[in-house]
Amino acid sequence: KMLRIVLCAVLFVGALPSLAGASQGHISVILLGATGDLAKKYLWQGLFQLYMDQVSSGHSFTFHGAALTALEPGQKLMFDVLKKLACPPDEPPNRCAVLKDQFLKLSQYHQLKTAENYTVLNREIEMLLRQEGLKEAGRIFYFSVPPFAYTEIARHINSSCRPPPGAWLRVVLEKPFGHDLQSAQQLAAELRSFFREEEMYRVDHYLGKQAVAHILPFRDQNRQFLDPIWNRHHVERVEIVLKETVDAKGRTSFYEQYGVIRDVLQNHLTEALMFLTMEVPANVSMAEEVLQCKLQAFQSLRGLEKNSAVLGQYQAYGSQVQEELQKARDYISSTPTFAGVLIHSDNLRWEGVPFVLTSGKALDERVGYVRVLFKNRAYCTQSETLRDAGHSQCKAKQIIFYIGHGTLNTPAVLVSRNLFKPVMPEGSWREAVGQPDLHIFGQPLSDYYVYTPVKERDAYSVLISNIYHGRKDFFITTESLLASWGFWTPLLDSISHQSLRLYPGGVENQHLLDFEMVSGEVAFTLVEPVELLNPNRPMPNDYRMTQSKYRQSPLVSAWSEDLISQLASDIEKTASRTVARSGQFHLALSGGSSPVVLFQRLARHHYAFPWRHTHIWLVDERCVPLTDTESNFFSLHNHLLQGVRVPYFNVHPMPVHLNQRLCVEEDRGTELYAKEIMALVANASFDLVLLGVGTDGHTASLFPQSENGLEGSQTVVMTESPVKPHQRMSLSLPLINKARQVFVLVLGKGKHHITTLLSRVGHEPRKWPVSGVSPSSGQLVWYVDYEALLG
Amino acid sequence: KMLRIVLCAVLFVGALPSLAGASQGHISVILLGATGDLAKKYLWQGLFQLYMDQVSSGHSFTFHGAALTALEPGQKLMFDVLKKLACPPDEPPNRCAVLKDQFLKLSQYHQLKTAENYTVLNREIEMLLRQEGLKEAGRIFYFSVPPFAYTEIARHINSSCRPPPGAWLRVVLEKPFGHDLQSAQQLAAELRSFFREEEMYRVDHYLGKQAVAHILPFRDQNRQFLDPIWNRHHVERVEIVLKETVDAKGRTSFYEQYGVIRDVLQNHLTEALMFLTMEVPANVSMAEEVLQCKLQAFQSLRGLEKNSAVLGQYQAYGSQVQEELQKARDYISSTPTFAGVLIHSDNLRWEGVPFVLTSGKALDERVGYVRVLFKNRAYCTQSETLRDAGHSQCKAKQIIFYIGHGTLNTPAVLVSRNLFKPVMPEGSWREAVGQPDLHIFGQPLSDYYVYTPVKERDAYSVLISNIYHGRKDFFITTESLLASWGFWTPLLDSISHQSLRLYPGGVENQHLLDFEMVSGEVAFTLVEPVELLNPNRPMPNDYRMTQSKYRQSPLVSAWSEDLISQLASDIEKTASRTVARSGQFHLALSGGSSPVVLFQRLARHHYAFPWRHTHIWLVDERCVPLTDTESNFFSLHNHLLQGVRVPYFNVHPMPVHLNQRLCVEEDRGTELYAKEIMALVANASFDLVLLGVGTDGHTASLFPQSENGLEGSQTVVMTESPVKPHQRMSLSLPLINKARQVFVLVLGKGKHHITTLLSRVGHEPRKWPVSGVSPSSGQLVWYVDYEALLG
Repeated sequence: KMLRIVLCAVLFVGALPSLAGASQGHISVILLGATGDLAKKYLWQGLFQLYMDQVSSGHSFTFHGAALTALEPGQKLMFDVLKKLACPPDEPPNRCAVLKDQFLKLSQYHQLKTAENYTVLNREIEMLLRQEGLKEAGRIFYFSVPPFAYTEIARHINSSCRPPPGAWLRVVLEKPFGHDLQSAQQLAAELRSFFREEEMYRVDHYLGKQAVAHILPFRDQNRQFLDPIWNRHHVERVEIVLKETVDAKGRTSFYEQYGVIRDVLQNHLTEALMFLTMEVPANVSMAEEVLQCKLQAFQSLRGLEKNSAVLGQYQAYGSQVQEELQKARDYISSTPTFAGVLIHSDNLRWEGVPFVLTSGKALDERVGYVRVLFKNRAYCTQSETLRDAGHSQCKAKQIIFYIGHGTLNTPAVLVSRNLFKPVMPEGSWREAVGQPDLHIFGQPLSDYYVYTPVKERDAYSVLISNIYHGRKDFFITTESLLASWGFWTPLLDSISHQSLRLYPGGVENQHLLDFEMVSGEVAFTLVEPVELLNPNRPMPNDYRMTQSKYRQSPLVSAWSEDLISQLASDIEKTASRTVARSGQFHLALSGGSSPVVLFQRLARHHYAFPWRHTHIWLVDERCVPLTDTESNFFSLHNHLLQGVRVPYFNVHPMPVHLNQRLCVEEDRGTELYAKEIMALVANASFDLVLLGVGTDGHTASLFPQSENGLEGSQTVVMTESPVKPHQRMSLSLPLINKARQVFVLVLGKGKHHITTLLSRVGHEPRKWPVSGVSPSSGQLVWYVDYEALLG
Repeated sequence: KMLRIVLCAVLFVGALPSLAGASQGHISVILLGATGDLAKKYLWQGLFQLYMDQVSSGHSFTFHGAALTALEPGQKLMFDVLKKLACPPDEPPNRCAVLKDQFLKLSQYHQLKTAENYTVLNREIEMLLRQEGLKEAGRIFYFSVPPFAYTEIARHINSSCRPPPGAWLRVVLEKPFGHDLQSAQQLAAELRSFFREEEMYRVDHYLGKQAVAHILPFRDQNRQFLDPIWNRHHVERVEIVLKETVDAKGRTSFYEQYGVIRDVLQNHLTEALMFLTMEVPANVSMAEEVLQCKLQAFQSLRGLEKNSAVLGQYQAYGSQVQEELQKARDYISSTPTFAGVLIHSDNLRWEGVPFVLTSGKALDERVGYVRVLFKNRAYCTQSETLRDAGHSQCKAKQIIFYIGHGTLNTPAVLVSRNLFKPVMPEGSWREAVGQPDLHIFGQPLSDYYVYTPVKERDAYSVLISNIYHGRKDFFITTESLLASWGFWTPLLDSISHQSLRLYPGGVENQHLLDFEMVSGEVAFTLVEPVELLNPNRPMPNDYRMTQSKYRQSPLVSAWSEDLISQLASDIEKTASRTVARSGQFHLALSGGSSPVVLFQRLARHHYAFPWRHTHIWLVDERCVPLTDTESNFFSLHNHLLQGVRVPYFNVHPMPVHLNQRLCVEEDRGTELYAKEIMALVANASFDLVLLGVGTDGHTASLFPQSENGLEGSQTVVMTESPVKPHQRMSLSLPLINKARQVFVLVLGKGKHHITTLLSRVGHEPRKWPVSGVSPSSGQLVWYVDYEALLG
């Protein structure tokens, strides 16, 4: 206690150590939230490490702890923390003791609450610099405070605490950076009004984990080995895993708002994913190039759907929430504490390679790793017992970035000996020896080249050092933050109603949380005897389809995603049956946005679809070139045809573009298409026509009051749309009604009004063209989602 | 010695045992080659087993051993064998002794050499039957003789030894059944002139191996489990393996003519392959349906190429051949004693699944198995140490038909416990227990359900029983024999010059014979320090491309397969470079047969080709519909476009079919195509034009003396071909000469004359249109194979 008081007194008379020799200028570090958990646990230690490392760099330092607490108690709290700072094992104890003494002298507590407080802080820094005759190099403001305080603090810093021109400002921000895309955008916009992009350092402490931070350097330094194999032809799968044994007890007020995906996957695991999937720029130390590659990698990610994830919640979580948040007995939390997510990248390098991201609380072990498993394409004539790790191509080939804990209990990089001996930076990583009988990922440790850090460093020490060095590539830029939220938000939205698997926790989980990939989706492996947590919903049950009648025809109804699955299956069934009967299947498809999801589903999940025997026709088309993004065919091509194998001859776009011009009558496009149909489709009777409905009751491109196509003998007609592009080509109602089957797909709240209206009216095609759909000898089925049906 | 004489005496007075009770009629079994190796080792024992099994069936039997040896010594040789017949362990010794005694009495030796001999044999059988008052059920002639003797014996049987109407004839034939497709066809034709198809039983003794024979019943009885997983979505790979430790010493006179592929792969391993890949008919006991499915499976196999196989020869083989066959010191045998072959089936079920067939002599262990390895698509959240075989989806999943020897040393069926508990026929297979610490295919035996035969039976016993029961599905029909030769012969032809890897034999082989699959081909894993056996050839070296000049332009020359590989690589390089520069690649391709191999190679081996940015144009087209097999576009579509992802809009077939008619001038097809080129190809200058050359010197569809296309401003022209279909559309010579690159591909002996001629003439496009190919600012490269170049 004596010491503290002495120290404070010393500080206030300005007898600071060693500032005089600062030829590179002075750096002020202001730690906001200086007495909080993170600061206690990591940040002060990290700042002390920085001081130790950089004391001879030519920079001088002062460290300013700040909090809302008043000066006296705040000082006490802070110096209690500082006294406990540890000397790292590799530091000579004498030197460390001296440096710690100096560090304490250079540290000072401030109450930062009002605008006035900030002005005073600024004045003190200026005064100190003047007194000591120091040039200012820059200021670091480290925000270790809850996100709701960000804006206020940022405003004060911007208005009162900016360093003079020539010195830099770096503000360090801790997650969460929003809750979804929208909130993240809002927060980003606010921060941007106070700071320039280059002034902001958003921390993801995973980027300070040595194994994670080494992914990109590893890829760069081992290009010669990785270039031929770092792609879909050689990589079997990638696992990015963070398993925790602890649960959320005591933290539910935070956790209940976030859940495992926002807490771990959106940030930490996604960063690792990016390091793996992005292209490696020629110069990996150019932060800007790395960022560009990262953003491109985000763009290549295939959008997540509900079935991209399996979710769980440990059993005790519910009661912990009830207790800690004083919730009612019947309150059911729908926050996942476990998630397994399957991610695909659609670029040429990674197409088809599964990236599994998984994390959870209350699991059976604590471990973090990134595992790249390569395909085994060898046949080893040598019998099993004689194979040795270095030469046998039949042993598993993997590269593992071991983040920490688990069996190894150290960060490490492991490369199977039958892959290659990696190039590792000598100063920072060294080959590990010992523990040869340890097994890891199915193989004895002796099957790998194993490297561990020469000096194991805490993530925050690494990050604070990177802040000091201005290494922006170790931090999350606004663009990449928003890209990540843009990627995760649709999944977060779509799973908000999803059922969670309850798990007991620890080794008791057994195989409950194992999951499998099946045609681009994931599902828990054990399906039967498991309790599910079904959040109450005011709508019909997710898991049962409603089947009844609509306008005297069969109606299939469900939530849109399930409805699309059902429709896709029904189309496949019809196709298979038809091909079995007649050898070919004539399918006429509509444009518009609703079918896009259907097209994607057909392309990705229906491997057995008889595409080789399917003819694709268009129900309607806009008078634009086929390569125009407005073209129905363009959309069909992008979302379906590009992904399946329909023979070229079986694809029949509408001939809206003839003789280098669009829908000119004398080019006789409608006649041409009608002739093509007559020539190929028996009796001009399509096997299946897929229609949609507009809010005005139009279907195909047959609009209310249309002069063409509602009746008469013409099979393909030109029509006028009330919206641009006005000119359209369409199958006529009489032709549609010759089809063997007609499916009408109606999706979304926006269609509720017309859906309700149509349920009450009769056959009035001039008012509502879709009411004229009535196959003369075929079958009509309505596929209407709950939102359209029930509003 | 006494006994034998007594027996013979008894036989000749006709005192045969137990013939009287034969209500089902009498069966005569005639074993030709009764004193040979196979007969000694297996066949007599099999016949004795048949007798033991069927003595109470209501049939009576006599057994006639026959050979070229004279009566006296033949009798002695044969009865020396018969005396050694063993009683199986499960037979009561008393009963067996009695039956053996009877069997000896029923057996008789004949010299069968002349036509007269056969007539006598026939007369004796007839006499015996008459004496005993027996109805004849049928006759079995078992050919255990060298194939050169087949025709002669068959002729004699057909002319002298056919049973009377109402009784059946079964002739049993042992391999080899020819040496390649042609010789097999010839042998089959000869046999067909003597026997009806249903009379012939071609033995592949692998079909009598219990584990092999159970593949189809297993698939039938476990349909419920296998239906969803027995396909390319779930099967990772299949291995069909027969490893031998013995070498060919003492058998080189046979082996040197056949080699490992003819000896083992073409027959035994192929039969197992068929059982795995064929569709299972509704009723697996209907031999005819099984055969049809098998033939369909053959049709689905993708053709083998040189690089489908890796070949080796054990080091001592050469000197063994020199010694045993009295060859000269410098004689080099090119007979492979080891082969690994990668097979693909192109049907929907198996597309992309690698089937590895491998066999060899002088390897490190003796073992035979069929192994189906399933894909692992699970992520197990549970840590490794806690996973148990029955529940963990992360343990390897496999089904193994263990043929025999090796670690297990018994036939067995193994199914991973995390797959399913199989249905097995209770009478014949039982669950095996014990040996839990044995490891097999990377897993402890306890990870599998293991079944072994209740009664282990020798393959020949099984087959002889099947002959008796007329189970033709256990034998090779003519059709399937020829299908198999049809499949293997192209490989056998193409590897006749291929280098062999020499291996020391046994465990010394180490990893020398391990091989890997890379883009649909196989190659030894170790490439460097290995001795290769290069058979002398009178032609340029296989492994170096000749590069020089032809008609003042660069010439690339090699054997055709290597030439095509090189050309495909060069096209890919050009494409990648061009796309990198301009974002798109305009490629104009010719029709004809030469490019087909190129198209296939591009589709199958060039995954990195920038197809999405490639535009495909036609150099020329025949005036037939695009779906006509004569159409150049149809061939291009089948062999290339169907296998890659070129966007629909980037595919530009020539418009020979407009307004439902072909190449009518007023439809202005040529104008249309010219406009399309102008609109899309900058400066109408294709990035690459691929041409061929006709024996008359034509190229594209520009024929000698053509009125159009050789000069002038027209870019797309109509021409007349001297052969049908006469009408053609073609790019003009001036347009071709605007290209940035032109590659001319010339393949085959048939082109030698024109190739020689063209090397001597100048620019004379009216005589030889191809001589007018001379890009004004682009590059011309000739790709001419050795056969075209050197004749």
